[in-house]
Amino acid sequence: MTRAPVTRKAFAYFYEMTTRWRDNDVYDHVNNAVFYEYIDTGVNAWIKLEAGLDVPGGDVVGLVVHSACDFYAPLSFPGRVTAGLAVEKIGRSSVTYRVGLFAGDAGRAAADARFTHVYVGRGDRRPVALPPEFRAALEGIARPAR
Amino acid sequence: MTRAPVTRKAFAYFYEMTTRWRDNDVYDHVNNAVFYEYIDTGVNAWIKLEAGLDVPGGDVVGLVVHSACDFYAPLSFPGRVTAGLAVEKIGRSSVTYRVGLFAGDAGRAAADARFTHVYVGRGDRRPVALPPEFRAALEGIARPAR
Amino acid sequence: MTRAPVTRKAFAYFYEMTTRWRDNDVYDHVNNAVFYEYIDTGVNAWIKLEAGLDVPGGDVVGLVVHSACDFYAPLSFPGRVTAGLAVEKIGRSSVTYRVGLFAGDAGRAAADARFTHVYVGRGDRRPVALPPEFRAALEGIARPAR
Amino acid sequence: MTRAPVTRKAFAYFYEMTTRWRDNDVYDHVNNAVFYEYIDTGVNAWIKLEAGLDVPGGDVVGLVVHSACDFYAPLSFPGRVTAGLAVEKIGRSSVTYRVGLFAGDAGRAAADARFTHVYVGRGDRRPVALPPEFRAALEGIARPAR
Repeated sequence: MTRAPVTRKAFAYFYEMTTRWRDNDVYDHVNNAVFYEYIDTGVNAWIKLEAGLDVPGGDVVGLVVHSACDFYAPLSFPGRVTAGLAVEKIGRSSVTYRVGLFAGDAGRAAADARFTHVYVGRGDRRPVALPPEFRAALEGIARPAR
Repeated sequence: MTRAPVTRKAFAYFYEMTTRWRDNDVYDHVNNAVFYEYIDTGVNAWIKLEAGLDVPGGDVVGLVVHSACDFYAPLSFPGRVTAGLAVEKIGRSSVTYRVGLFAGDAGRAAADARFTHVYVGRGDRRPVALPPEFRAALEGIARPAR
Repeated sequence: MTRAPVTRKAFAYFYEMTTRWRDNDVYDHVNNAVFYEYIDTGVNAWIKLEAGLDVPGGDVVGLVVHSACDFYAPLSFPGRVTAGLAVEKIGRSSVTYRVGLFAGDAGRAAADARFTHVYVGRGDRRPVALPPEFRAALEGIARPAR
Repeated sequence: MTRAPVTRKAFAYFYEMTTRWRDNDVYDHVNNAVFYEYIDTGVNAWIKLEAGLDVPGGDVVGLVVHSACDFYAPLSFPGRVTAGLAVEKIGRSSVTYRVGLFAGDAGRAAADARFTHVYVGRGDRRPVALPPEFRAALEGIARPAR
């Protein structure tokens, strides 16, 4: 919370979504758990639309093993939220994304998150190497961690 | 289910939203309860953006007393959904909206819903007459029921 | 809204659940769309726990084609909600449930809903006859419509 | 992921909840964002039921500024989930909870989370000192961080 919120420059892919009336809590702001719906949506939109990974039909399944979020500013309904996405770390079976959430046209993030998938076999749920084409796609949106 | 799904012509206001990864159920389609999040969002977007009713700060509160939906086609993530809105019935304290949900650019609705609010006083929760300016706004998007 | 809310006697199966902080809207009551999450949960709990239908692994898939709800009283967090379930109508491929939602130990329903599934083949999505054992289970919780 | 998941002994307060059909994703397991609904519910249940803080009616508002979760095992519907709660750090205006999520009667956590609130004034949204009675309640469930 001491550093300034991240800007859009840190991200390589952007997916715009909308907030819902049901997202607002008793304080008329989006509930904290809903931020993770936006984060999850940004990651999976890229995977399905850009990375060509067959979800959920393929042989590998991405399990979320860790996520975290710093919240800098409220979001609310009605409104637009853009998820900015970058890959921060690629392992043999795992990938950590950084996801920034931007309200409307804001340049500074309302939230700054990390989200780690481990890929496992559909049947045995054992870690597998990232499929080569998927790894290449991940490298295409890689940005070094600050 | 015997008649053809309604088209966009039946509606007077449109609000576009996006689906989320978390909306999809085990069949990879949007869960039925989530359709009501879209319906609710279409109604409240119009109220907040177009009808000038102060929600939730004002003296009156709209309570949902009835809703219903016919489901014609699946929705899925990723994708856009547009809620079409029309007012079908205006009472002294109540209003019934018709809400159609359209997938992407589809002309026929994936779902066709009714949604009834009764307005009550914030403090005593007793029905009150619709505020005149709000009634006028409702009349502006009124369409006769088929 | 003119008749008194239904009591627990109208139902044959009960499933208790809990509300969540995220369910509450800006008025500190459970949002209307969330009632359908409770309704859906009551139906699917019975199907999975009592009716022995393999969901989602089996050959048939239940599609929701209609739902409706009358709302009589608010629900809130924290709290318990019990879904009462009865079968109101059984067709060749379809079943309509009545679902009452009861707050805590209340005897009168906070909400009274209908929920219709049509069963289709997993692959071709064409209506199929209800599996005989499933039909027998449905008949076991059948109650005539009022 | 290298250490064994935490046990119930690390926690001082427990709140049991239920999963919903809508929680399950396309892999028939609870979606990652929904874990944060459970975490959030565990924290707010304690605040409302045990700590005597008036939420949302009081003069102070708790803003979530950080949350994080390690996921160890899937959760699913139907099922019970118990949130275990402990206070790990108390500041002048802030508190960090540790929240473990336990499936059914499991002794090892399916998820291990941190959740930080900063308390601000309702009107000016500036950090305020924790109310003394609330601080005392927090100290009552304090456990040292491992």
